[in-house]
Amino acid sequence: MINRFKHLLLGTPLPTQAMGEVRLNKIRALAAFSPDALSSIAYANQEIYLGLVIAGSAGLGMAWPIGLAIGGLLLIVALSYYQTIHGYPLGGGSYTVARENLGTLPGLIAASALMVDYLLTAAVSLTAGVEAIASAFPVLWPHRVAVALVLLLVITLANLRGLQETGTLMSIPVYLFLFTYMPMLVAGALKLYSAGPTAGLEATAPTSLQPLTSILVLHAFATGCTALTGIEAISNGVPTFKPPESKNAGRTLIVMAVLMGLLFVGSIGLTQFLGVTAGPDETILSALARRILGNGPGYFVIQISTMLILAVAANTSFADFPRVSAILSKDGFLPRQLTNLGDRLVFANGIIILAVATGALIILFGGDTHALIPLFAVGVFLAFTLSQSGMVVHWFKLRQPGWQIKALINGVGAIATAITLLVVAASKFTEGAWITILVLPILVVGFLRIRKHYREVGKQLSMRGLPPSLRPFPPPRVVIPISGVHRGIVDAVDFAESISKDVTAVYIEMEPGSAEKVCEQWKRWWPDLPLVVLQSQYRSIIGPLLDFLDETDRAHNDGQLAAVILPEFIPAKWWHQLLHNQTTWLIKTALVYRRRDAGFQRVIIDIPYHLRK
Amino acid sequence: MINRFKHLLLGTPLPTQAMGEVRLNKIRALAAFSPDALSSIAYANQEIYLGLVIAGSAGLGMAWPIGLAIGGLLLIVALSYYQTIHGYPLGGGSYTVARENLGTLPGLIAASALMVDYLLTAAVSLTAGVEAIASAFPVLWPHRVAVALVLLLVITLANLRGLQETGTLMSIPVYLFLFTYMPMLVAGALKLYSAGPTAGLEATAPTSLQPLTSILVLHAFATGCTALTGIEAISNGVPTFKPPESKNAGRTLIVMAVLMGLLFVGSIGLTQFLGVTAGPDETILSALARRILGNGPGYFVIQISTMLILAVAANTSFADFPRVSAILSKDGFLPRQLTNLGDRLVFANGIIILAVATGALIILFGGDTHALIPLFAVGVFLAFTLSQSGMVVHWFKLRQPGWQIKALINGVGAIATAITLLVVAASKFTEGAWITILVLPILVVGFLRIRKHYREVGKQLSMRGLPPSLRPFPPPRVVIPISGVHRGIVDAVDFAESISKDVTAVYIEMEPGSAEKVCEQWKRWWPDLPLVVLQSQYRSIIGPLLDFLDETDRAHNDGQLAAVILPEFIPAKWWHQLLHNQTTWLIKTALVYRRRDAGFQRVIIDIPYHLRK
Repeated sequence: MINRFKHLLLGTPLPTQAMGEVRLNKIRALAAFSPDALSSIAYANQEIYLGLVIAGSAGLGMAWPIGLAIGGLLLIVALSYYQTIHGYPLGGGSYTVARENLGTLPGLIAASALMVDYLLTAAVSLTAGVEAIASAFPVLWPHRVAVALVLLLVITLANLRGLQETGTLMSIPVYLFLFTYMPMLVAGALKLYSAGPTAGLEATAPTSLQPLTSILVLHAFATGCTALTGIEAISNGVPTFKPPESKNAGRTLIVMAVLMGLLFVGSIGLTQFLGVTAGPDETILSALARRILGNGPGYFVIQISTMLILAVAANTSFADFPRVSAILSKDGFLPRQLTNLGDRLVFANGIIILAVATGALIILFGGDTHALIPLFAVGVFLAFTLSQSGMVVHWFKLRQPGWQIKALINGVGAIATAITLLVVAASKFTEGAWITILVLPILVVGFLRIRKHYREVGKQLSMRGLPPSLRPFPPPRVVIPISGVHRGIVDAVDFAESISKDVTAVYIEMEPGSAEKVCEQWKRWWPDLPLVVLQSQYRSIIGPLLDFLDETDRAHNDGQLAAVILPEFIPAKWWHQLLHNQTTWLIKTALVYRRRDAGFQRVIIDIPYHLRK
Repeated sequence: MINRFKHLLLGTPLPTQAMGEVRLNKIRALAAFSPDALSSIAYANQEIYLGLVIAGSAGLGMAWPIGLAIGGLLLIVALSYYQTIHGYPLGGGSYTVARENLGTLPGLIAASALMVDYLLTAAVSLTAGVEAIASAFPVLWPHRVAVALVLLLVITLANLRGLQETGTLMSIPVYLFLFTYMPMLVAGALKLYSAGPTAGLEATAPTSLQPLTSILVLHAFATGCTALTGIEAISNGVPTFKPPESKNAGRTLIVMAVLMGLLFVGSIGLTQFLGVTAGPDETILSALARRILGNGPGYFVIQISTMLILAVAANTSFADFPRVSAILSKDGFLPRQLTNLGDRLVFANGIIILAVATGALIILFGGDTHALIPLFAVGVFLAFTLSQSGMVVHWFKLRQPGWQIKALINGVGAIATAITLLVVAASKFTEGAWITILVLPILVVGFLRIRKHYREVGKQLSMRGLPPSLRPFPPPRVVIPISGVHRGIVDAVDFAESISKDVTAVYIEMEPGSAEKVCEQWKRWWPDLPLVVLQSQYRSIIGPLLDFLDETDRAHNDGQLAAVILPEFIPAKWWHQLLHNQTTWLIKTALVYRRRDAGFQRVIIDIPYHLRK
């Protein structure tokens, strides 16, 4: 029943051979790798606006310079990753690059930063997408959490079903976004040009609540840097490009960076020079679109395409997070189950963990992008810095022709992103960055403890040095705890006699006087087998049974532990379980988990007896 | 660790012999059995007031006649139960009396009514208690749900610890209530007498929102009848009285009924004739006390003693509900676990179920007594009616001297309570009584299905007609699924060889190519034992293993199923469990629950291997 429902929802299982490889041309690759990068303007713009508006028109006047600065940073980071793509044609994720060049610990720090990033990309993209659509349909504004969770559910199910992230379906929102947004920016530029210099922000900006300080500008810059998220995506996926892989990937990266820059700098410039401001229930991008396009269908198309590309961006996390988890898991830093391919050949456990964590973040932060952003930027720039530093070391090691210029470019990238990291961490510390700064080392310690455990287990399971078992094992002694003389124990007694000549039944008397009848019946059926009656002062079955087993083992002193046969009846319907004491289960658990110092463990033999109705 | 915490909270386990019997004198018996009965004036008064106030002063003028009518009903019911006490000196709960005299089905209806009653007594007493105290301390009013849940938690823990409901501690609130409330009523009467006729309700009552209809009066009467709850308590507990039991119990009942009548009729009369009304954040009894005693310490003592006796009343449910559950469970109508005495010699499962259900009711109904009352009265009067009807049949069967008059008294009781039941059910149907009317038959059907299941199991477990097992059982064939050649499977192989000459190991290849190394290692260690490699196309272990077992069983065709030995390693710390595939557990579950039509079931042998760190 449950299986049938699962198959309906997620599809029937796929055989392992069905796992294929798809190579992407540049058009499809751009659609596959750019949604996160392109869509990040949605929240980056919003953050800069919210950061500056409290200083009124003077504050908002800083948007353009900040936008240009971030555009410059974008250029540096893009050049850095262009080199990573050529340096690591097999895929150079931050974890790989940092671990290989800087060592395990920096690698793990990068990995933890990446995992936090993917999680926040999912959460922030969803909430920002919902905010885009709720700006157009204000009736949705109070229900943003619910709408975001529904979107999350749809994306999760699609991914568990094994959605092809490279599929055509995914490219539609990306190109829709590009082919609506770019013309809108052009229209805005024309409007600005034809209108000539306007009164601008002085007329429209709300009154200043705070003076314009350099701290305030740094804050706005720090959160605006989230515009750069997603730029590293292509460097992870070089092998999926058509050959020549690195060349095609590099060109795609350049195109993507140029588009990102145009979208970001263009929209932020138009916002400022058209003097656009937004109320509390609308995003600044929505206000810009409304200003350029009016309240017509064009505006609604823009908002819907913004929402769609943000949803696709969230979706990329559902490919990336489980993939990084699986890599870490293969290296022994995360539970092995994360490498298990599910029925549909996806890393189902990783998808589920990401979905649950994303849902929790959305609920905890009330579906508010602005509240989530401070957690976001720290991880992004930490991964950037480690990856770029790793590349510098990489070039120093290789010393190929022209390595100095390559090392210089990555070095500039590393320094620029490191400075940004410090600015972000310091200026947003109290607003939420502290959470990420706290979580990252916890994750790293967790990774290390998990690997330690696996190594310990490996040592303990090693056959090395074990003498071959020469002496034949003597047949076991057997003890059968019974709850009475009934049909359910017959198989158990039969089996016991088939494997051992030393069989003892045990009855634990809970209600004084009940043993007499049981003994009498036992003698009638199995006159040759001994039945021991134990008293239970505290109405527990486990205690007296364990004591009895220990005592007889000690008395026999043959180096063996008696095997315990447990007759267990299995009800015909699940709810019947509730009507029976879970005694067999309790005994099993107590016996299995009872720790012994060394040597042979107690064997537990389960003899099911199925009830028919 | 968990055990130590449990012992700290609930006390160390008690031996079964510690179960003693305490006989009560009348003073202590009154304290033990009356809290529910006496405290019910708190919500009954409130309901009558709320029912009438919507019709303004004309409505409130009906309080006194309704109070007198309920007082008369109280007299009839008390006389009826007086007879039950003498007819059933061993304890005549509604379930016992109805089942013995009317049959199983009426007995079960009474039982379900009782269980619902006890549940609602707990919920209503707690919410009414919190309302009493929140009337005195208005800061608590918005937090009534939280305060009620804290009280519930305290009562639950005290009962799990094995609180003696008959203890001295419990009598303090009862006598405190009597010795503060009675003098207050006297003071009120003096005040009324000295002031002479006042302007009364005409001056104070809020304006009428509805005309005074007979429907409205019936509504108020119906909910006011909750004043009678608890009057049956003594009839359940006759054997705990000092001898002569019935006589002492009967006298205690009379005293209790008189006290109930005085409190109820007295308070309702004073409320009306002093023209007392209450705002939305105060109970009418609180308003009455404030009017008589002013805002001084006397008023606060009254409110605290009201809260305390209501808490004690809720506490009686925690003795009664588990007791009735245990009786039903012994008769096979409820899961057997409800008869289990916990560590502290209490029916722990019943207490926990009641606590969870009470908490759920309090939360669902927002801690509002008024919302809960319509669910309450139906159960109470259904149990009354069935119990009294049972008594009529009882007297008809016995035909002792004077049986006619006894039957007449119980007959009047039965008719009066039946009429009240109809009034309550009809007039409060849409306000919540429908829930109870829906739940009762569901419970009864549940009882019957549970008994049917136990009877089926009894039949299937019967040894009757089973031929004695003469033929010696052949030694079993054994299959060992292995995940690799490691230390954890050595014990399993050793044990397998000790019980069987036909041992096969099985390796399921998940990653193509992994089997080769395993085969080679296996041959090195156990050259004489066969290892079978199975392919798993869908990355499942269970499927191929089950297929293999079925096939070999069919191939051998010896009427036996191969026993499966499962090597299982047990991690040293609980969180290590998360780092391992739960494969052994999955295989175990699949094998145990696999239903076979008849004959011998598959034996599962569990060989634990404990990891040291």
